[in-house]
Amino acid sequence: MPAPKKHILFNAFNMNSVGHINHGLWTHPRDNSSDYNTLEYWTELAKTLERGLFDGLFIADIIGVYDVYQNSVETTLRESVQLPLNDPAVLVSAMAAVTQHLGFGITANLSFEPPYLFARRMSTLDHLTRGRVGWNIVTGYLDSGSKAAGLHGLAPHDERYDRADDYLELLYKLWEGSWEDGAVLRDRQARVFSDPAKVHKIIHQGHYYQMEGYHLSEPSLQRTPVLYQAGSSPRGQQFAARHAEAVFISAQDKGEAKRAVDSLRRQAVEAGRKADDIKIFAGIAMITGTHQQEAQDKYDDYRRYASPEAGLAHFSSSVGIDFDRFELDEPIHYGNSNAIQSAASSAQANAMTKRKLLERFKLGSRYPTLVGDPSYIADELESWITDVGIDGFNVSRTVTPESFEDIADLIVPELQNRGVYKTSYQEGSLRHKLFGAGDKLPSYHAGAQYRKEKEPHDHKEATV
Amino acid sequence: MPAPKKHILFNAFNMNSVGHINHGLWTHPRDNSSDYNTLEYWTELAKTLERGLFDGLFIADIIGVYDVYQNSVETTLRESVQLPLNDPAVLVSAMAAVTQHLGFGITANLSFEPPYLFARRMSTLDHLTRGRVGWNIVTGYLDSGSKAAGLHGLAPHDERYDRADDYLELLYKLWEGSWEDGAVLRDRQARVFSDPAKVHKIIHQGHYYQMEGYHLSEPSLQRTPVLYQAGSSPRGQQFAARHAEAVFISAQDKGEAKRAVDSLRRQAVEAGRKADDIKIFAGIAMITGTHQQEAQDKYDDYRRYASPEAGLAHFSSSVGIDFDRFELDEPIHYGNSNAIQSAASSAQANAMTKRKLLERFKLGSRYPTLVGDPSYIADELESWITDVGIDGFNVSRTVTPESFEDIADLIVPELQNRGVYKTSYQEGSLRHKLFGAGDKLPSYHAGAQYRKEKEPHDHKEATV
Repeated sequence: MPAPKKHILFNAFNMNSVGHINHGLWTHPRDNSSDYNTLEYWTELAKTLERGLFDGLFIADIIGVYDVYQNSVETTLRESVQLPLNDPAVLVSAMAAVTQHLGFGITANLSFEPPYLFARRMSTLDHLTRGRVGWNIVTGYLDSGSKAAGLHGLAPHDERYDRADDYLELLYKLWEGSWEDGAVLRDRQARVFSDPAKVHKIIHQGHYYQMEGYHLSEPSLQRTPVLYQAGSSPRGQQFAARHAEAVFISAQDKGEAKRAVDSLRRQAVEAGRKADDIKIFAGIAMITGTHQQEAQDKYDDYRRYASPEAGLAHFSSSVGIDFDRFELDEPIHYGNSNAIQSAASSAQANAMTKRKLLERFKLGSRYPTLVGDPSYIADELESWITDVGIDGFNVSRTVTPESFEDIADLIVPELQNRGVYKTSYQEGSLRHKLFGAGDKLPSYHAGAQYRKEKEPHDHKEATV
Repeated sequence: MPAPKKHILFNAFNMNSVGHINHGLWTHPRDNSSDYNTLEYWTELAKTLERGLFDGLFIADIIGVYDVYQNSVETTLRESVQLPLNDPAVLVSAMAAVTQHLGFGITANLSFEPPYLFARRMSTLDHLTRGRVGWNIVTGYLDSGSKAAGLHGLAPHDERYDRADDYLELLYKLWEGSWEDGAVLRDRQARVFSDPAKVHKIIHQGHYYQMEGYHLSEPSLQRTPVLYQAGSSPRGQQFAARHAEAVFISAQDKGEAKRAVDSLRRQAVEAGRKADDIKIFAGIAMITGTHQQEAQDKYDDYRRYASPEAGLAHFSSSVGIDFDRFELDEPIHYGNSNAIQSAASSAQANAMTKRKLLERFKLGSRYPTLVGDPSYIADELESWITDVGIDGFNVSRTVTPESFEDIADLIVPELQNRGVYKTSYQEGSLRHKLFGAGDKLPSYHAGAQYRKEKEPHDHKEATV
């Protein structure tokens, strides 16, 4: 009997905004992303995703605006390119109330979020969802975000990751070390809610962050939320190898993806972890129908509403280059900045023209799009899993909600028939669902060293 | 025909914690506040409150821990005196999804919340709730909170309010001035989501806060959330007179309450507003039954579970005095600190002994408690409204959820029979429900001056 096949993981990729990845599609008559600011949009989406046994809903975020293209926010505003953009974290509890298993990955920028309050917010969400939250760790790259937050410019790229290491250490101490297992008794008869001997004051004296205090939240099911990361720079990959449990990559093709995957898994092993301790998700869009022609017709229809220019405006800020300055067929030389290294990872980027970019963005996005019947798409997904060595996909929305409904109704059954997709959810936390090894960080993860069990402690001294 | 009577307003007062005001009652067999970290606790509570036509649920918060009593957090942890304590803001969307009208007042501490992200979080909640959120503005008073947030001590009391004025000005600019009415078109045919000419970059160069950027959220129904405040110091009242639309007072008796109310309304008028532009809520607990004896029996039963010592530990931090140092009948001289002026506003405070305090805290709290049948309690409430000049009550929970259920089932019908309580909700936002004059801040409120309509604007210049 052959070994059971590995199950493909699906995250739905969304943002608390109108335009996210595939720009312009909000103008499609069947698209409801303009309703992003209503509760019903999110609760209905969550129910659809749980029907499709998606592992998680991943909600992106960005602090700042895309103002590089034409040195202006005009296209950004007119086309709604991630502006307006609402807070992702406050969406979670409403969706958790209408689902049982769906995970929620929330992007939060540690350059702007104060760690003590942020640690509590994530703990609260982990409580309310019974262990279904993840955090996508970002450090920010938009100058407009830094100015809006009242900071005097962004820290240099690599220093932002040094700060992130320090920030994570502080959070691990709060999440893993402040309250021991067994600190909370809830004992009505004895009138003891918490055992003071098992609750510890955290003192953190890092290079960038210092604090002294108790974590305000009692331990949640996962304690540390599942840690997601997406940095593709060398320093970003080093950070991911140490901390991340899931990584998102965006690649134009399998070759480019495989180089990123191999590098990341090698570094994880070098950092003392197992190669498969990191679940890797590739960004992708899928457009399908019951047969090939239906899928193609749907794609052609969507294309009429997509905005390649909005995709270009988005990309301009991603790489820090105003593409409006170039003639259609003028060669675009990217230069050598950090922003480009991290965002424009495509190998052929330096041979680009604006015409080629606009052609690539024909569905409003630079990410790959699969178009075909369920069998074709399943073949492609299996090939990405097997040939590239990834674990799953970060599925962006095109016309919403129908693109997610199509996946739940057409793609998922095909994958299930092939034995490469779960037919029901596992019980337990998001981390346990992903790794099958319990709710908490594994003992050899960087965060686990801050656990503080069975140490003698004198509270009176500690609080003097 | 006599004029219709003024309707009494009810806010339910709660916290994302076990112990809030009436300490010790979590040990009562029918109390479910230990379930504060589950979604069901909150969605059921919200439904009960809406059944009782409560105007709002007010969720308190504190950053820091109560560590003054016995110079320790032992009593705080053992008795669960607002520790553990989870984030209030992320509760809202789940409750909003199961209600139509209930308002949500969220406490947030501006000393620790970065203004740009905080402004977006509140806008997002205002969108998701369709205009049902309020913000209780606090500046913090716990040294332990300041240390935990990594700050080097609290700013002096009055300077905290100077910072708060600056912070509010920044938020008003974002909420009221960044996006004009009519900036958002959602026009699919014309492919225009927002009109760039009506979206403005905010530049704020305050003494404490500086920023430059666009508000990330499009305008919500209320724009500025309903502004709550509770400061009782002279500088706190001055701040409230300028900004607050609702104020909470905590007073031992009607005389003390009346002095606070008269002072506040006088200052509002001096600040160019109307005396009744501020809705004033007094903190109170109610224990009732179908007849007087049932109420008294319930109160006696509750008392067996209450913890006067936990109340004392809480009060120790409120006023910055370790009451454990005193003998039971030793006179307690409070001294003259700011913390005491703002927290121990009771006139007889200086003649206190620990025995008297513990007697006052017999239900675990220093706030007044009404015990009696619905008719008795309605008489008392009407007297507070008429004699003191307040608008409503901030109703703390005792044994939960039954204390709120008793109010919905017994007190509210009695008040309705007397014509002093609404029999259905008004349509519209929380602000409109409270004041009947539209969803937005009135034009003469301090925040309204930052509205920026029909001004010429050049985006290219603004974003250079």
